[in-house]
Amino acid sequence: MTEPRWDGLIVGAGLATLDGEAYGAIEDGAVAWSDGVLTFVGRRDELPGDAASLADEVIEARGWITPGLVDCHTHAVFAGDRAVEFEMRLGGASYEAIARAGGGILSTVRAVRAADEDALFEASRPRVEALMRDGVTTLEIKSGYGLDFENERKMLRVARRFDGDGLTVRTTYLAAHALPPEYAGRADEYIDAAIDWLPRLHAEGLVDAVDAFCEGIGFSPSQTRRLFECARALGLPVKLHADQLSDLGGASIAAEFGGLSADHVEHTSEAGVAAMAAAGTVAVLLPGAFHVLRETRLPPLELFRKHGVPMAVATDCNPGTSPLLSLRQAMQLACTHFRLTPEDALRGATTHAARALGLADRGVLRVGQRADLTLWRVRHPAELCYWLGGDLLDASWVAGRRRS
Amino acid sequence: MTEPRWDGLIVGAGLATLDGEAYGAIEDGAVAWSDGVLTFVGRRDELPGDAASLADEVIEARGWITPGLVDCHTHAVFAGDRAVEFEMRLGGASYEAIARAGGGILSTVRAVRAADEDALFEASRPRVEALMRDGVTTLEIKSGYGLDFENERKMLRVARRFDGDGLTVRTTYLAAHALPPEYAGRADEYIDAAIDWLPRLHAEGLVDAVDAFCEGIGFSPSQTRRLFECARALGLPVKLHADQLSDLGGASIAAEFGGLSADHVEHTSEAGVAAMAAAGTVAVLLPGAFHVLRETRLPPLELFRKHGVPMAVATDCNPGTSPLLSLRQAMQLACTHFRLTPEDALRGATTHAARALGLADRGVLRVGQRADLTLWRVRHPAELCYWLGGDLLDASWVAGRRRS
Ligand SMILES: [Zn+2]
Ligand SMILES: [Zn+2]
Repeated sequence: MTEPRWDGLIVGAGLATLDGEAYGAIEDGAVAWSDGVLTFVGRRDELPGDAASLADEVIEARGWITPGLVDCHTHAVFAGDRAVEFEMRLGGASYEAIARAGGGILSTVRAVRAADEDALFEASRPRVEALMRDGVTTLEIKSGYGLDFENERKMLRVARRFDGDGLTVRTTYLAAHALPPEYAGRADEYIDAAIDWLPRLHAEGLVDAVDAFCEGIGFSPSQTRRLFECARALGLPVKLHADQLSDLGGASIAAEFGGLSADHVEHTSEAGVAAMAAAGTVAVLLPGAFHVLRETRLPPLELFRKHGVPMAVATDCNPGTSPLLSLRQAMQLACTHFRLTPEDALRGATTHAARALGLADRGVLRVGQRADLTLWRVRHPAELCYWLGGDLLDASWVAGRRRS
Repeated sequence: MTEPRWDGLIVGAGLATLDGEAYGAIEDGAVAWSDGVLTFVGRRDELPGDAASLADEVIEARGWITPGLVDCHTHAVFAGDRAVEFEMRLGGASYEAIARAGGGILSTVRAVRAADEDALFEASRPRVEALMRDGVTTLEIKSGYGLDFENERKMLRVARRFDGDGLTVRTTYLAAHALPPEYAGRADEYIDAAIDWLPRLHAEGLVDAVDAFCEGIGFSPSQTRRLFECARALGLPVKLHADQLSDLGGASIAAEFGGLSADHVEHTSEAGVAAMAAAGTVAVLLPGAFHVLRETRLPPLELFRKHGVPMAVATDCNPGTSPLLSLRQAMQLACTHFRLTPEDALRGATTHAARALGLADRGVLRVGQRADLTLWRVRHPAELCYWLGGDLLDASWVAGRRRS
C-alpha cells in the first residue's frame, strides 16, 4: 500500500466545509491536499497518528477556513470611474434617465476604448487585487464596455491576463450590454455584429460564457434569444442579466437555453423561477446594485427556496451601479437588504457561485475538490457577513499554493 | 527676516481642503508643515521659488489629500462579538426584543468584565487599527460596557492606551448606556452610582466627555439630566445618544447642557433641531446602525440644513448594531441611505466631526491647523464615498509625522 504524501496540512482552525447543515462546521479541524486537490477534510483528532510526518508542510492555524470565495458576476475590467456620476445621482438623476441621456455606461465605453491593453490591465488591477485580498480565489469577469470587436477582444484578453496561479478567471462575453453610439437606433444590426464577433473571439479561447442585458433599457428578449442561439451552436453556456428593473421574462429565457444563471432577478415571476428550477439555472443575487440604486423590490427569495433554485451572491463590481471591491461586503448587503442568513450568503459566495460558473470542482471543502481555501481571522463564520470594512483575511491557498 | 523652515512638504496631489465650496479643492496642490502645524496650503505654483530647499523632506504625491478622518462616535473598545446575534436577528428578533430579553448588550458587558486590561486592549486593537488603516487620525471611544466603577475605568484606560503619536483618542464616559443586571429595576440608584464614579474617573484624567443613552430602552430624560448636571459641575462637555428609536426630546436635553453633539437623532423634532442650532450642538449621523437595523426613519436632514446644524458622520463601531470597521464605509452608507452628498459626508467625517469633539485645531486643511493628513489613491474626492470595500489609503500623517 502506498503511503499517502500530502503537500500541505492545516490544523487547528475551524472548517466551514459547507458540506452538510450548519456551515458543515468542524471545530479544531484539519485539511490536507496533494497536487492541488483536497485529500483530507475532518477533525484534527481523526488524522492518522503520523499525520505530521505525511505532509511536506504543516500549518498551525487559528480562525476559520472556508472554501475560497467565488465572485461569479463582475465587470471588474474597466477604465475610468463614475464617482462624479454617483455624486450627481445623489442629486436625484435616475439610472434610466442617465442611460437615456447617453451618460452613464457610455462614459465607461469611451474610457475603455481609449485605453490600450496594458493601460486597461493596470487600471483594473487594483480592483482585482482588492477582491483577492478579501478572499476571492475564482473570479468571473465580463466584457461589455468595448462594444466593438477589437475592444471586446481587448477586454477579454485583459480578463484572461488575471488568470493564473493565484486566481482562476472565467471570462464572459457581454457585447449585448449596451448599444454603442455608432449603432444608435439599430439594435438589431448591433446584435448581428455581436453575433458575428462571438465565434471569432471563441476561436481565440477568450470566451467561457455568453451574457446579455435583457431589459427595457438594454436588449429585447428576441435579440437575447438570437445571441443565445449562436452561443448554443458553439457549445458555449449562457447567463443573463434578467428582470432587474422589470419582468421581461429574462429568467425563463436563461432557463430555455439551459443557462448557468439568471442574475439580478428582482422582478422574476414564479413561472420564471419554476423554469430556472427545471433547467438547473442558479439565481445570482447582486445586492450591491440594489443598495446603490436604493431599489426596494426584493428578489423573490421565498420562491427560489420553494422551487429549490440555488442562490449565489456576487459583487457585480462595476463603475456605474455597484462599485464594490469586496465580495464579503456583498455578502453583508445580501444579509441586510435581502435577509439572507450569513450561512446562505456564504454558500452563495462559494458553493452556489461555483455552480453559477459551471465549476464542479470547488465551492465546498470535501476530499477530491480543489484546494482553494481561505483562512479568516474570525471566531465564527457568521462574522464574514457581520463586519463592514476591516481586513479579516489571514491567508489564501489556491490549488494548494499559498498566495502571497 | 527668519527663513521659513518646513519639516515636510507634499506636492502634486489634489487637496480637498474643505475650506470653501466644492471641497475647497485645489488641484496640483502643495501642503507644508512645521512642528506638526500646517504652514502652507495652496497651489504648487504658489510656492516660493526655493520651496524645495525650505523643507527637510519633499514628497511627490498623486491622488487626493484630505484632512485626517475624525471618527467622533465609537464603542470600539469591547470584548467578544455578536455575530451570532446578528445571525439570530436575521431570523427576525428586534433590537428592543433582544435588549428586553437581557441578551444583546449584556453579553458584551459580560465579555468586557471578564477580560483584563491587556486582553481588552488586544481584543480592541484590530478594530482600532482597521479604522486607522482607512484614514482615521482622531478617534472617539466610549466606555459603557463595564457598568461598574472598575470596569468603566478599565475601558477608559484601554481607550487612552490607543492615544499616541499616530492617533488622537478622545475618551467618553458612557456608564449610562445600559442597566447592569445587579441594578435591575433600580435605574435611579444606578445613575446615582454612575454619578459617583464620574469625578473619580475624571480625577484620573480618563474622561474627555460624558454621554448617555436616552431612550425608552435606555435612561430617562430626568436621569440623563442628573448625570449631565454632574458633568457640568466638573466642567466636562456632554453629548447624547438621542432620539434614535423614539423622540424623548434628547436633542433638546443635549442642547440645554450646551452639548457637543446629539447622536443618531432620527426622531428629533424641529424644536429639538432649533435648540441644537442655538446651542451650537452638532448632529452626529450614524448610518451604520440605521443600515444594520434596517431602520426606515431618516434623520431630519432638511431641518438640520434649514437651521444650520452641522452634520457629522461616524461609524458608531459597536458589536451590536454597527459592526463597522471603516469610517469610509459609514460615509458610503450616509450617502446611500441618507442622501448626503459625498462632499457633505466628507465634511461630516472631518470638519464637523472635529467640532463634535470640541477640537478646533483639525478637520480642514488651513494654515495653523494640525498637520493631520490622509493621502488617498483616488482621482476625485467623491470616490471616498463611492467604493464599498477596497483599500484607497496611500499614507497618513499625524501632526506632521508619517504613520507607518
Ligand atoms: Zn452585471
Ligand atoms: Zn453609540
